[in-house]
Amino acid sequence: VEAEISVADLGEFGLIAAIRDLLPADESLTVPAGDDAAVLRIPDGRVVATTDVLVEGRHFRRDWSGPADVGVKAAAQNLADVAAMGARPRTLLVGLACPPGLPADWVLDMMRGIVGECVRAGASIAGGDVTAADSVMLGITALGDLAGLAPVTRGGARPGDRVALSGRIGWSAAGFALLQDGQGLALLQADQGSGVLRDQGSGLLREGAADRDRDRDALALVQAHLRPQPPYPAGPAAARAGATAMIDVSDGLLADLGHIAAASGVRIDIDEAAVPEDGPVAAAAALLGADSSDWILAGGEDHALAATFPPGSVLPSGWIAIGEVRAGSGVTVNEATWTGRAGWDHFR
Amino acid sequence: VEAEISVADLGEFGLIAAIRDLLPADESLTVPAGDDAAVLRIPDGRVVATTDVLVEGRHFRRDWSGPADVGVKAAAQNLADVAAMGARPRTLLVGLACPPGLPADWVLDMMRGIVGECVRAGASIAGGDVTAADSVMLGITALGDLAGLAPVTRGGARPGDRVALSGRIGWSAAGFALLQDGQGLALLQADQGSGVLRDQGSGLLREGAADRDRDRDALALVQAHLRPQPPYPAGPAAARAGATAMIDVSDGLLADLGHIAAASGVRIDIDEAAVPEDGPVAAAAALLGADSSDWILAGGEDHALAATFPPGSVLPSGWIAIGEVRAGSGVTVNEATWTGRAGWDHFR
Repeated sequence: VEAEISVADLGEFGLIAAIRDLLPADESLTVPAGDDAAVLRIPDGRVVATTDVLVEGRHFRRDWSGPADVGVKAAAQNLADVAAMGARPRTLLVGLACPPGLPADWVLDMMRGIVGECVRAGASIAGGDVTAADSVMLGITALGDLAGLAPVTRGGARPGDRVALSGRIGWSAAGFALLQDGQGLALLQADQGSGVLRDQGSGLLREGAADRDRDRDALALVQAHLRPQPPYPAGPAAARAGATAMIDVSDGLLADLGHIAAASGVRIDIDEAAVPEDGPVAAAAALLGADSSDWILAGGEDHALAATFPPGSVLPSGWIAIGEVRAGSGVTVNEATWTGRAGWDHFR
Repeated sequence: VEAEISVADLGEFGLIAAIRDLLPADESLTVPAGDDAAVLRIPDGRVVATTDVLVEGRHFRRDWSGPADVGVKAAAQNLADVAAMGARPRTLLVGLACPPGLPADWVLDMMRGIVGECVRAGASIAGGDVTAADSVMLGITALGDLAGLAPVTRGGARPGDRVALSGRIGWSAAGFALLQDGQGLALLQADQGSGVLRDQGSGLLREGAADRDRDRDALALVQAHLRPQPPYPAGPAAARAGATAMIDVSDGLLADLGHIAAASGVRIDIDEAAVPEDGPVAAAAALLGADSSDWILAGGEDHALAATFPPGSVLPSGWIAIGEVRAGSGVTVNEATWTGRAGWDHFR
């Protein structure tokens, strides 16, 4: 058995050199990663900027998430914040703290996950920092370009506006529930990271076509939790269509619409029947005896986009209407206070 | 005794609201902190971006550094990287992970340190993220504006160029040595954070004027370690004066000049007698029986700026000549290989 090369074996500068080899070229980076700072061309004259911290054991578990999963998730949640302003993600800065004994391949695979998600979003990587710590922590910053559009804040919703959604909802929370239950983890292990379900004699991947489809759906939910897929182009599309307010759904649909309601000084009413309950989410709820509306209305981390549009707007492709803006404050579901579980507080 | 309010007591959103009250206004932030992302006006059409991670126990110790010290240091090392490109620091994004039981005042005092250093550098704070972790970690990103100047990279030094330095050198390493020795910590405790030395009966703050001056110098070194003071305006001044390469001295003067030498394909020779040995640094070396050249040539974290200028250049105010660029590779001191200790690797 060959000994694994650790981060300490490579050393800080060796690790940085190995990471730099993975970075996609970007001619907008007039000074790319490797100097004191990078220089990014933003002809628009306005830069969109957001940062997030991810901590092992809080935002991800290394026994559930592979390194590429961690990278995809870390990138996606930042890139989605840029899209939620109506901007195009342009570049990422990646700060990494990790134990010196961590295999260097873990870090490089994580970077491959970040790079892959950046490419999907049309972004590059402008720089970063690596340092030692007792557990893995990531500090990621995303920069974006409004390309001439006005930024879409949380504060512009007006009574009468349509409320709309783009992207998956409830998938991540359902996948998390499957992982907690153990069934999701078994499926994930059977999948072996290949992306194609294979029967490892676990009994989980059953013979009948209906059962196999159910397993495949469950695995898709687990993967949606590990690797959210924000609908990046939906952000600028909403801005072009005149969206009055927009947010990235990270804390839960109701909690995040609550941020729009508070910033705009309005009430937002959701028509629960209009919020899609996708087949895999419904099936997982049946399997676990759970209420899928908890996942759909209060589950976070799908990084869907929610926005408001002026009355009578034609919604851009990929957006579906889910409610209406009213005078008042707070968020209601079918005109009533929702009594399910609340959003997420990182310290409670 | 009143119970201290913890971060968990305030909660994520309470903490964010308390932090937001501390942020200075910046009319270039057309969308300030509080939305999915901030929007910063950069009329130049190019944004300078850099990120750093600071980890408790690696980059700072909470028994040595007060919260404001941690904030100052975290901000300074990022803002200095922006200045080292020849740019003006414009704004900071602050990602913070901390234990839920940490006093909320610790976080707010740290933010006051960050804000103070930003104000000193002419920058604002565009946003951030707070989350829970077992120890304190900061992920900080600084953005800057070249204001029409060409960026000064590490790669433009040419044989014959003058090598110059702006800012303190050796102070941080000398202060660190005093802290390790214990004398620095005693002085710091006697100082009680007031910024004015007071005799607490510790015997350290002596009666005679000469002794008192020596204690005051030692304390200044300790404070320089805890709160580096990068010479921000020296960066754009160097760019205006035609600097061919520039770097922030974070790993040590020789190590960082080595980065310029490698990126430029040149050798850099330092005239050791020209590198200032400031009085407090010399005094601390005498006190501890140390070699001050280790601190001056290999000690990092002062965040001075080192740059190269075309032959015959008049150096801008605050810059002093310390050597010359030659053909070849590597860094020499008085034309010879330096045999003191090397720079810093975070994983070794």
